[in-house]
Amino acid sequence: MAQHQSNPRIPVSILGATGAVGQRFVQLLDRHPWFEVVALTGSDRSIGQTYAEACHWVLTSPMPDWAGGIVVTPTQPGSSERLAFSALPASIAREAEPLYAQAGCAVCSNASAFRQEPDVPVLLPEVNPDHTSILSCQRQRRGWKGFIVTNPNCTSTGMTVALKALQDAFGLEKVFAVSLQAISGAGYPGVPSLDILDNVIPYIEGEEEKVEFEPRKMLGQVQADGFQLAKCKISAHTNRVAVSEGHTVCLSVEFSRPPSDLAEAGRVLAGYSAPAISADLPSAPRPVIHLLTGPDRPQPRLDRQFGAGMATVVGRLRPDPLLHAKLVVLSHNTVRGAAGGSIYNAELLVQQGWLV
Amino acid sequence: MAQHQSNPRIPVSILGATGAVGQRFVQLLDRHPWFEVVALTGSDRSIGQTYAEACHWVLTSPMPDWAGGIVVTPTQPGSSERLAFSALPASIAREAEPLYAQAGCAVCSNASAFRQEPDVPVLLPEVNPDHTSILSCQRQRRGWKGFIVTNPNCTSTGMTVALKALQDAFGLEKVFAVSLQAISGAGYPGVPSLDILDNVIPYIEGEEEKVEFEPRKMLGQVQADGFQLAKCKISAHTNRVAVSEGHTVCLSVEFSRPPSDLAEAGRVLAGYSAPAISADLPSAPRPVIHLLTGPDRPQPRLDRQFGAGMATVVGRLRPDPLLHAKLVVLSHNTVRGAAGGSIYNAELLVQQGWLV
Amino acid sequence: MAQHQSNPRIPVSILGATGAVGQRFVQLLDRHPWFEVVALTGSDRSIGQTYAEACHWVLTSPMPDWAGGIVVTPTQPGSSERLAFSALPASIAREAEPLYAQAGCAVCSNASAFRQEPDVPVLLPEVNPDHTSILSCQRQRRGWKGFIVTNPNCTSTGMTVALKALQDAFGLEKVFAVSLQAISGAGYPGVPSLDILDNVIPYIEGEEEKVEFEPRKMLGQVQADGFQLAKCKISAHTNRVAVSEGHTVCLSVEFSRPPSDLAEAGRVLAGYSAPAISADLPSAPRPVIHLLTGPDRPQPRLDRQFGAGMATVVGRLRPDPLLHAKLVVLSHNTVRGAAGGSIYNAELLVQQGWLV
Amino acid sequence: MAQHQSNPRIPVSILGATGAVGQRFVQLLDRHPWFEVVALTGSDRSIGQTYAEACHWVLTSPMPDWAGGIVVTPTQPGSSERLAFSALPASIAREAEPLYAQAGCAVCSNASAFRQEPDVPVLLPEVNPDHTSILSCQRQRRGWKGFIVTNPNCTSTGMTVALKALQDAFGLEKVFAVSLQAISGAGYPGVPSLDILDNVIPYIEGEEEKVEFEPRKMLGQVQADGFQLAKCKISAHTNRVAVSEGHTVCLSVEFSRPPSDLAEAGRVLAGYSAPAISADLPSAPRPVIHLLTGPDRPQPRLDRQFGAGMATVVGRLRPDPLLHAKLVVLSHNTVRGAAGGSIYNAELLVQQGWLV
Repeated sequence: MAQHQSNPRIPVSILGATGAVGQRFVQLLDRHPWFEVVALTGSDRSIGQTYAEACHWVLTSPMPDWAGGIVVTPTQPGSSERLAFSALPASIAREAEPLYAQAGCAVCSNASAFRQEPDVPVLLPEVNPDHTSILSCQRQRRGWKGFIVTNPNCTSTGMTVALKALQDAFGLEKVFAVSLQAISGAGYPGVPSLDILDNVIPYIEGEEEKVEFEPRKMLGQVQADGFQLAKCKISAHTNRVAVSEGHTVCLSVEFSRPPSDLAEAGRVLAGYSAPAISADLPSAPRPVIHLLTGPDRPQPRLDRQFGAGMATVVGRLRPDPLLHAKLVVLSHNTVRGAAGGSIYNAELLVQQGWLV
Repeated sequence: MAQHQSNPRIPVSILGATGAVGQRFVQLLDRHPWFEVVALTGSDRSIGQTYAEACHWVLTSPMPDWAGGIVVTPTQPGSSERLAFSALPASIAREAEPLYAQAGCAVCSNASAFRQEPDVPVLLPEVNPDHTSILSCQRQRRGWKGFIVTNPNCTSTGMTVALKALQDAFGLEKVFAVSLQAISGAGYPGVPSLDILDNVIPYIEGEEEKVEFEPRKMLGQVQADGFQLAKCKISAHTNRVAVSEGHTVCLSVEFSRPPSDLAEAGRVLAGYSAPAISADLPSAPRPVIHLLTGPDRPQPRLDRQFGAGMATVVGRLRPDPLLHAKLVVLSHNTVRGAAGGSIYNAELLVQQGWLV
Repeated sequence: MAQHQSNPRIPVSILGATGAVGQRFVQLLDRHPWFEVVALTGSDRSIGQTYAEACHWVLTSPMPDWAGGIVVTPTQPGSSERLAFSALPASIAREAEPLYAQAGCAVCSNASAFRQEPDVPVLLPEVNPDHTSILSCQRQRRGWKGFIVTNPNCTSTGMTVALKALQDAFGLEKVFAVSLQAISGAGYPGVPSLDILDNVIPYIEGEEEKVEFEPRKMLGQVQADGFQLAKCKISAHTNRVAVSEGHTVCLSVEFSRPPSDLAEAGRVLAGYSAPAISADLPSAPRPVIHLLTGPDRPQPRLDRQFGAGMATVVGRLRPDPLLHAKLVVLSHNTVRGAAGGSIYNAELLVQQGWLV
Repeated sequence: MAQHQSNPRIPVSILGATGAVGQRFVQLLDRHPWFEVVALTGSDRSIGQTYAEACHWVLTSPMPDWAGGIVVTPTQPGSSERLAFSALPASIAREAEPLYAQAGCAVCSNASAFRQEPDVPVLLPEVNPDHTSILSCQRQRRGWKGFIVTNPNCTSTGMTVALKALQDAFGLEKVFAVSLQAISGAGYPGVPSLDILDNVIPYIEGEEEKVEFEPRKMLGQVQADGFQLAKCKISAHTNRVAVSEGHTVCLSVEFSRPPSDLAEAGRVLAGYSAPAISADLPSAPRPVIHLLTGPDRPQPRLDRQFGAGMATVVGRLRPDPLLHAKLVVLSHNTVRGAAGGSIYNAELLVQQGWLV
């Protein structure tokens, strides 16, 4: 287990704490060994109310008692937090997150606002923990004492973990990705029920662009002042379906050096291990990838809880008539694909010494 | 309107009439201008009961009165029918349909049993009405007075109509197809509710093989004694989602002669017309393809009823980073993709003179 | 058929036309024999746009062409309409509907704003067409040239039709009513999908009060200056379930003069006919009540379309251990329980001569 | 904590282990402090296979490793088990459970087969632990060394706990109960998805009879040779809705000695404690009843996990215009209402000394 454990816990704020992702941060930080929530921020409507009053709690486990009594404050850096988890909408994140970074905070953001910036890492600890080296450049360029780190879009998350394992072993040339995404990905109130009962919505605004970009950044190389995208091209179709939690992605991939036998790809996926610095963090899933062999798996209702929602679940590995392999990837979108991913990133930053 | 109209109606049987697809045949043949149902066949459990007694009706319009009183008979050719619509399971169809063909019946089958046979056409009147020329070969080779014609698998149906329009204009090289299929495609009782509520099943047995084969047969060339498959390769992922009716398919396609502007592909889709012999049949959808321009369409709940469920609905035409174009196709799986498709085929056969 | 038929059609406005109920008005007034839509009103956000631009159409049949081109206007009486169908929210209806009534319009309202007023009828043509006699009092008291008529809440609608048949035959003392209501009853965007997928919401604000009051007003007596409520007491629990359209209500009833055999109650329900003045109007369902005998009916998906959504569907009539009878009532909430009910009311008013 | 704890664990069999309820037994007995599974029985189709091979696992947590390797055996008493948990269908339970009782086993059954027998208790440890005194009579009358104890039907379970608290305080005269039941209550494959998507089924075979009988037996008095039913009459409507787990029941109740203020009823519910012998058993929920004060609670998706699925959740306590009070009760149907209930019963039997 990681080194930090015995020290006093690090004071953290949750920005945009009353929304669906904010609630997940509250839930997942309950009794966290390293982090202690000291502030919950919200919009004008919520400020001054207790969290219990301000928040329409939508999770299936009760709100922790400690959270209910915290008075919601404005989204402005205070004196106590050293780390801020951001569940802000992108438009607000663009303004607010830099204020926290400037004030010396480490910002671990779930927002998309800065993911395309050349000096901001999109981070998955199992995939690209070395990408945090860009933070020196980020601080210098922007004159910040703190910094911003982002986790990828919820759909990019699981597929990038699986693609990383395959890229390491066989190289990646082309990726087709078609998602079947859960309604919780749109937040609350989010998708109107009339739009999704007995229905599919074959469109999620801005999502295909993210899925075609973010994995290439994470699978690429960090350099002194930016990132070189991975060479693989990605084509994405993104769909909303009547699932509460868990994004399913159908992938077809072309390798640079295809294995003679797909069983080898299966072994590569099942055996993938995180870099040492990420492997033993409190939120690290073990194993990183669950490879299911049932012909009809993974399924979101049955398989989204692997690794307490932090694991990547893969199944249906089989040949593709056009490219080399087909597979299906499942990842919990509000745990691993949102709050849990940010927390795992923060643990990595602690371990790497960025929070001293 | 077509020529047959004024003659007495052709007596037809529905084979396997008590199941979900059988019920659609009954519903769609109610007051059909050319066909009159004279027999409804069923399994041992149903024989001797009236259709009203034997059938657990699952459609949202009431069972026609004339059908409720018909006594269910065994699936054996009788003396009166000249045309048999088959809603049989594949395993039973393999035995029973040839008996009807031998007895002189035209069999229009929704079953998959004979779709791969080199002398059996898989038929969509808007796509390949000329493929019925193989029936001479079929009769001669098998010594039948009648013949068997099939309609494609419900997922192949809509995508093949759209691909035909594109192939005619630009040629087709590669097709990626990922389906989000309705539960009614599995019949009744079909998919257990525990398997699909808050869930996706990323697997439908045998379906991907059908979707990778049947469109190529329909888009290919009929020859004296068989078919030459279209050269385009197809890669398919098939998924079950919580939708009652309407299969959605995400397509990425590579053209042989790509248009300089995708708007041209839109005009080709919207302007596609059926061959003259198919265009004015009673079940012909007009237009053949509805091209929707809303950014989030087609959607099964909203758009499956276009053309009374017989039309192909296309939307989200846009560039693809790997191939040339992405699009989304929707087709009503139990109307166009099953019973309605068989009936439209039968109308074509009448028009072509195969039922004299 | 009713007398009005050959005259020129009456010009009508739809107030609040862009919402879900407003859309139903547009759909159901398409090709109406008596009424012609001349104005569609909306909120500031919509005014000046065409209806096609302003409206997020959520119905499963396409928007009529004539409607798409109408420019949305403010909700203020114009010079042309003689009849206004109101799909306004209650808070806006309270201000706007009197302006139309004052200007001489007949207002047929789906809003709850005036249902509790002693001089405003809550009207179901099969149940209480005589209640329109209060309109003389309403005009005089309020100094209006026109008037306001309301249709009941969607949950009260079907149960009141069934209760009317039973009250006429056996008298009514007590009614227990537990509803399972469709999401469309909450409008659009209405119920968030996260609140209803894999869930039940046992609460709908203000609904139980309506269901405990409105049927008693309709089943009561009209007097010169008000209404005497029916003596039966009603206890209601109202629930939201994952159904798109169709409200199901479980009823237990105590009669004043119970039949010796419940089969007699069945005959009374199945044989119930509307008063003569209501029976042949264009929107009149025939029969008024469909009595289903299957042990598991009515069901919303299968049975909501009886009488084009205007009929009341009843099933599961059986003894009650505490009161006299249990039954289940189904009614289409956005057709019969909203726009269709208002239109049927307007037809009655024409037939009664209130629109000369 | 209870006395048994330090002894070696009691060997138990699960009868009918491959079905949905059988799987819950396996899951809930994983690492149980008192019980150790030594046999899993199944039908001819499963016998001789390992449990992993024979079982289509439908739960959302993985099958325990120890269970996967057990070879499924016939449903016949063996030499090792002293306790048998029965997840058998009623028709098979009627034959098989007596064989186990005769062989000396304590049978804790989820089946309905013996619930109506005058010498078989229907048991909820928080409600009627004293009812096990009938077992002496049962053994003597039937000549068994063991005995059969049943848990109630899943819908009766939660409502009986709430009614017990109210009966103790105020007496009970009349109860109206309308259920909205989860699909998992019908087992697997159970409810076809076409029957429940966008639908309600207002009928569950045999269910209303159970709900009108079982609570009265549990709320009644045990005597030397049978039970005196509680005097309260119950009227039940039972419905199936699109919920995976958690039965919601709307209750209206008439008291013998109504409280002057319903807040007192709230205090009675929230403060209800199990009899001392049941209060500290391993599966005992603490508190017994969660009283929720949110206006729209309980909801199955949000509240079914209270007390690890063993608690009774109550909300919406309010006056009733006909009787005295309305309330809503939620209970987890496959945990508390099935396997978990049987296990809690078995713990009570151990504590009472019936398993020595």
